Amino acid sequence: MKKENIGIIKPQIFKFGNNDALQLDCGKKLENVEICYETYGKLNDKADNAILILHPLSGDAHAAGIRNAEDEKFGWWNEMIGPNKAFDTNKYFMVSSNVIGGCSGSTGPRSINLETGKLYNTDFPVLTIGDMVRAQHKLMQHLKIEKWLSIAGGSMGGMQVLEWAVSYPECMESSIAIATTSRLSPQGIAFDWVGRQAIMNDENWNSGEYYKNSPEGGLSVARMLAHITYLSEESMSEKFGRNLQKTEDYSFGFDKDFAVESYLQYQGNRFVERFDANSYLYITRAIDYFDLSRRTKGDLAKAFEPVNSPMMLISFTSDWLFPPSHSQEIVKALIKNEVDVTYCNVESSYGHDAFLLEVDVLDKLVRGFVDNQYKSNSNE
Amino acid sequence: MKKENIGIIKPQIFKFGNNDALQLDCGKKLENVEICYETYGKLNDKADNAILILHPLSGDAHAAGIRNAEDEKFGWWNEMIGPNKAFDTNKYFMVSSNVIGGCSGSTGPRSINLETGKLYNTDFPVLTIGDMVRAQHKLMQHLKIEKWLSIAGGSMGGMQVLEWAVSYPECMESSIAIATTSRLSPQGIAFDWVGRQAIMNDENWNSGEYYKNSPEGGLSVARMLAHITYLSEESMSEKFGRNLQKTEDYSFGFDKDFAVESYLQYQGNRFVERFDANSYLYITRAIDYFDLSRRTKGDLAKAFEPVNSPMMLISFTSDWLFPPSHSQEIVKALIKNEVDVTYCNVESSYGHDAFLLEVDVLDKLVRGFVDNQYKSNSNE
Repeated sequence: MKKENIGIIKPQIFKFGNNDALQLDCGKKLENVEICYETYGKLNDKADNAILILHPLSGDAHAAGIRNAEDEKFGWWNEMIGPNKAFDTNKYFMVSSNVIGGCSGSTGPRSINLETGKLYNTDFPVLTIGDMVRAQHKLMQHLKIEKWLSIAGGSMGGMQVLEWAVSYPECMESSIAIATTSRLSPQGIAFDWVGRQAIMNDENWNSGEYYKNSPEGGLSVARMLAHITYLSEESMSEKFGRNLQKTEDYSFGFDKDFAVESYLQYQGNRFVERFDANSYLYITRAIDYFDLSRRTKGDLAKAFEPVNSPMMLISFTSDWLFPPSHSQEIVKALIKNEVDVTYCNVESSYGHDAFLLEVDVLDKLVRGFVDNQYKSNSNE
Repeated sequence: MKKENIGIIKPQIFKFGNNDALQLDCGKKLENVEICYETYGKLNDKADNAILILHPLSGDAHAAGIRNAEDEKFGWWNEMIGPNKAFDTNKYFMVSSNVIGGCSGSTGPRSINLETGKLYNTDFPVLTIGDMVRAQHKLMQHLKIEKWLSIAGGSMGGMQVLEWAVSYPECMESSIAIATTSRLSPQGIAFDWVGRQAIMNDENWNSGEYYKNSPEGGLSVARMLAHITYLSEESMSEKFGRNLQKTEDYSFGFDKDFAVESYLQYQGNRFVERFDANSYLYITRAIDYFDLSRRTKGDLAKAFEPVNSPMMLISFTSDWLFPPSHSQEIVKALIKNEVDVTYCNVESSYGHDAFLLEVDVLDKLVRGFVDNQYKSNSNE
């Protein structure tokens, strides 16, 4: 069957927390929470075909399809979601939501604080991956789904998968965590720190109170820095080498000489058009704070004790941000707990970005895992 | 014999270029050039015991000893230079100079342009490693040294070593290039790009025309970013892990929570006290532009054809900025040219910084190489 693209998709908003505030890990409560989400496919009568998709740092609820008839840009995981794709919308009901703290429809630092009537900005509480997942659980209840057939995501999306598996094991039949980790490495924390300093050092950041001019320069620096960590030395050498952008000789100046400089700056410029600087601060902090085994004093197997459904883990050989060794630690901990675990370390030169780019391999691995899960549930 | 520290060392200034301007690779000429340098030990009567030390990006002429009786901070390669150390000042006459473009005594962007009476700032010409070496060659002539017993340096210092070996092969008996490369990788170019954008995005940079307030925030971001690339994931995990700095729990804020954040910020803060932002732009650009095989259209062996004296190369297993593979390419090219080459890939978890930290191994390797060279010259 030929893979097809989903058509036009409209985002939806779920509001909660008027009388039911979200309890946060920092101790505060978040009221009047809005979650922006999209769905693809149809929930069946038994409500047993629902799959939750969780996005990475710079993603949003728009995982597949287009926004309108003229839209030429598909959602961020469009290759994986649609009729006859790995997440086959002829069979499955897909749900994708923007994380709280984000800037693409869900409540975040650029939302209005109803108490003050002003933007939260840095009054917004610092969130954790756990908080994001707790909000998603409210959405699940709202959608009247009792159990996800699966929960899937890469990078920060994978962190959310692991958090779900530990916090709400009764809510899923299976889960898929791609290019992720049970805790960010000190190197990852360091890169996040530098990115945030670049934003906060931008005069337009203004302690988070920016209105007309946003700290685009700083956010662009943060994004470009992060982008380097998403690639690999190998892929950068293959893609750009030391090629010059336009000139035959060096310009002997500080503008873009090299193709890799031009590429990075383009990425930085595009990012600031669609992402908010304060959100970037909050989401990277949530990523820094993610450490599942902190609760169990470093014992990862103990942290994973609640997990009671099959889990698939996928890593990529050239991913140095969330390296294969981190996935392998998770696999070992799950095996120790006798969890049904499937693991593949995919050979790829794309670095961390492979979870978005290695579509053919991911299609096969994910399709097999999800379809198998669906079949075995139906036969029960 | 017990290793000793050199005592108080005073920097010296060599001026040239009044009627003898330095021809630069960009096509311009640099006049009234000053080079700040230091010497350790004594030149012997035959003038055959002189060794040139070349510093990395953030280094300067002050490679060994102290500045005054109260100074508690030794020069940047003090462990390697002094009585009975690898570069034994009882035997050898060591010369160390600050690169042009630098900010520690040699002519650079913060020097006064005698034509205008103002600071050069971004009117300073963009330099290359070749330009730096051409200036050092003038210093060599000034010091009446016809041939260096050896030339040694790590990182950008190693680039200068390679440049010397190719441009002035008749001026050396041997050379030692540590943790370096024949051309910066696209990943390295990318990191440099982001660092420069952080500086240039700082409002205090003011197109390079800063006087009262310098772009300390931006320079600190650039330094912290670079510092991550000098370490390895392994050494960061060993040294910091995910340890919190002071608090027992997360602060749920954006200040320094993790030990690694505190360490990085400290490094950034210290750096801006001693380094100039414009110099940082110029020196990183020179590093970007370094590509020995560019002259020979990618043929590294051909680029190294002029080399006619023994060369030692040292790399470090965990160095991902200037990885061992780059040193190994150089070794292969030299062997193809039948150059007498000595190579060691040192097992180390310190990353790129190993060239400053793995003192015991470096002492043995360098001492053996230099002493052997000195002996065989004396016997000729």
